[in-house]
Amino acid sequence: MSVFTAATDQSVCTPLPVLGGDVTVPLVTGGEVTYAALDYAASAPALQRVWDDVAAYAPYYGSVHRGAGYLSQLSTDLFENARRTVAGFLGCRADDQVIFTRSTTDSLNLLARALPADCQVFVFETEHHASLLPWQDARVTYLDAPRTPRQAVQILERALADRTVSTEGGYGPALVCVTGASNVTGELWPVRELAAAAHAHGARIVLDAAQLAPHHPVNIRDLDVDWVAFSGHKLYAPFGSGVLAGRADWLRAAEPYLAGGGASRKVTRRQDGGVDVEWHESAARHEAGSPNVIGAYSIASACKALTEAGWDTLVAREQHLIAKVRAGLAEVPEVRVLSLFGDDAPRVGVISFVVEGWNSSHFAAALSAEYGIGVRDGLFCAHPLVRTLLGTDPQSQGECGAPEAAPGEKSLNAIRVSFGAGTPDEHVERFVTAVAELVRDGAKWRYRTEEGRCVPAV
Amino acid sequence: MSVFTAATDQSVCTPLPVLGGDVTVPLVTGGEVTYAALDYAASAPALQRVWDDVAAYAPYYGSVHRGAGYLSQLSTDLFENARRTVAGFLGCRADDQVIFTRSTTDSLNLLARALPADCQVFVFETEHHASLLPWQDARVTYLDAPRTPRQAVQILERALADRTVSTEGGYGPALVCVTGASNVTGELWPVRELAAAAHAHGARIVLDAAQLAPHHPVNIRDLDVDWVAFSGHKLYAPFGSGVLAGRADWLRAAEPYLAGGGASRKVTRRQDGGVDVEWHESAARHEAGSPNVIGAYSIASACKALTEAGWDTLVAREQHLIAKVRAGLAEVPEVRVLSLFGDDAPRVGVISFVVEGWNSSHFAAALSAEYGIGVRDGLFCAHPLVRTLLGTDPQSQGECGAPEAAPGEKSLNAIRVSFGAGTPDEHVERFVTAVAELVRDGAKWRYRTEEGRCVPAV
Repeated sequence: MSVFTAATDQSVCTPLPVLGGDVTVPLVTGGEVTYAALDYAASAPALQRVWDDVAAYAPYYGSVHRGAGYLSQLSTDLFENARRTVAGFLGCRADDQVIFTRSTTDSLNLLARALPADCQVFVFETEHHASLLPWQDARVTYLDAPRTPRQAVQILERALADRTVSTEGGYGPALVCVTGASNVTGELWPVRELAAAAHAHGARIVLDAAQLAPHHPVNIRDLDVDWVAFSGHKLYAPFGSGVLAGRADWLRAAEPYLAGGGASRKVTRRQDGGVDVEWHESAARHEAGSPNVIGAYSIASACKALTEAGWDTLVAREQHLIAKVRAGLAEVPEVRVLSLFGDDAPRVGVISFVVEGWNSSHFAAALSAEYGIGVRDGLFCAHPLVRTLLGTDPQSQGECGAPEAAPGEKSLNAIRVSFGAGTPDEHVERFVTAVAELVRDGAKWRYRTEEGRCVPAV
Repeated sequence: MSVFTAATDQSVCTPLPVLGGDVTVPLVTGGEVTYAALDYAASAPALQRVWDDVAAYAPYYGSVHRGAGYLSQLSTDLFENARRTVAGFLGCRADDQVIFTRSTTDSLNLLARALPADCQVFVFETEHHASLLPWQDARVTYLDAPRTPRQAVQILERALADRTVSTEGGYGPALVCVTGASNVTGELWPVRELAAAAHAHGARIVLDAAQLAPHHPVNIRDLDVDWVAFSGHKLYAPFGSGVLAGRADWLRAAEPYLAGGGASRKVTRRQDGGVDVEWHESAARHEAGSPNVIGAYSIASACKALTEAGWDTLVAREQHLIAKVRAGLAEVPEVRVLSLFGDDAPRVGVISFVVEGWNSSHFAAALSAEYGIGVRDGLFCAHPLVRTLLGTDPQSQGECGAPEAAPGEKSLNAIRVSFGAGTPDEHVERFVTAVAELVRDGAKWRYRTEEGRCVPAV
């Protein structure tokens, strides 16, 4: 986590250019303003460099793998090179596989279907749904929310030690799934320490790096995790691809994730009328169907762009933005920032909060309508965690989406602001000003609700 | 099939502009030539209109569904409108669901996981792997290759009638999966008649329209099929999305295809430490994770572009190209076109053939290297069908990819030429000339093999 300590260096670089950085949006109060995209944790804009790469390649797009033509060969080369670029970006071991999926959710569902028989899965209740829910066909142990990183390691160690010994006298296979940076608090989890604990107890570990990889270098060897999953659309490459990278053995032994062409090496009709299939053992085993070449290529482009920009610079700049936002929010007593690990925890540019006297959906709508700022409200597809942080009833009705609650009632959901390599200072400055003004003066516009969402009652 | 009878009208429109239509590639014989993309059946180039739409939208890309910002709302609107556009394109019934997937393979795997308990699946051995293989967790009856469309219906009727009656005295649930146009022969299957047979016997039917939708109007109500699956990348929208559309009941009753955010309505920790999940019942149930907005939007754009170009015109033009290719190939006695249903069968622009005295991989490589023509060689991920058509041993080693065989040996695989709405006459004219010249004069260049593929030994 030491990379985060140089956080408040003021001599920071400019943001990386992103597509749409100059898009303006109308305000209900009149006029237009450049859009402040502060929902990076859901999906980040494309880096201009990524878009330029995609646009330059698109005319040369061709069917990959089994096409004999020049553009097919070129596209195949580019697709397989994208795999190598991602392997380098993640510092993969020589025998790791890099599988292109559609997203982190898809990557973790793939791994869930590749678990060995009788595998036990350990997951904190604080995980977002993508990492919390895919394991329901396995035996899952849900771990209580820790309040410090150290406690997280202790809780995991205890749970692993409490495993039932099988009749053969040993432990069966086990997998720990942990998110690297929370999509709610932005706080970093002690991945290396959790990996050490997992391995010490004979378990494996998969890192959900959806929120970590866009903000922080992720090295599979340094962290000593078995798999890493991340999404292109959060890594400035929103073209429908994601990645699962790591140990090949479970993946090779598993049934193909999708059954179809590309995954099948040989298919034959048997004498008895049935069909025999030989499946590939490479990454292709889990990539049936025509691959999303542009999606994979865009991820590789983003990996290169981030690497070339330099993580030290990117991290320093983001920490500078985080400090600005946190300082601004701290000056508004009505704002409560949600945190599991406390003020000093290292974090990425993802900050959730509630505002006393405000319904979070109303507040987010006002930020958009009156300031051109795009944030998110809700439970961020991490329901148990957000309810724990809000202190609401575990059964409360705050759902994914914006639940209805009159202004003044206890918040059933929260507001999340998130940013990254493309965010200019002006966006977070505008955000901080907007929060202070809205709390001080109230919304300048009145709202009504429509289909469960606040809209201006123009 | 009547739309196909006006086939050879010579007064046909110009091709639709596609991205990369002016890309040139080098020839081993010297010089450059515009690339003739004749592998549409694997993946078609993007329509220029689709690319323009994507490029115009990309700066406005934002996180969908739960983002409060202006671009999030705009992107959500666009994404959900894409669903409606696809529903209109397919003529969906009011209560049909349109689910965005990554491809036809993905769509059919989704449906395979949504089968009711004890569902019996009927599938012809002639299907490509995407529609042949996803059903292996169910009871599958593989049907022998028919030699006429009428025989296909008879074979299906017989198999459905032969079903085992359950102990309750009725038939259990059954699904027929059939491809609308063969990815090997391009021949049309009697979808409407097969649907009638399926329904008459209490079964449901899913249409694999991967090869049909890019070439021919597909109307779910007119054909009276229960589901339709197709891919964006074959429909001139290669941005990583596909579609499954049709009956909602099985989809609503099924476990979510992917577990994660977006599919989950409410997640709560139970008192006993477990986790309860309420899932959505809309299309979102099977679309967990951040959707591929650009992919979905690009499909909607293609649907609009094809509809506006007009199917009568598009079909007439394609039939004109088909006639040219078939007439050209008929003049070369060494060429044998592969066909299941015979010369008169209605078909789309997908034609496979072998050349006496040539290894198909060598031939395809020569077409690329000496003429700048991109075709495909292999078994086209439809192994049993191609082996049947080639008359080779069902166990022969022709695999997905280009198997090795010395020139002069019996073909273990074939060459496929395929085209569509973006193909100019010059491409198919060049192809026909190239086939005749290669057969007459031999390859001007010598080949060696490298990693299982023929490359020029320059």
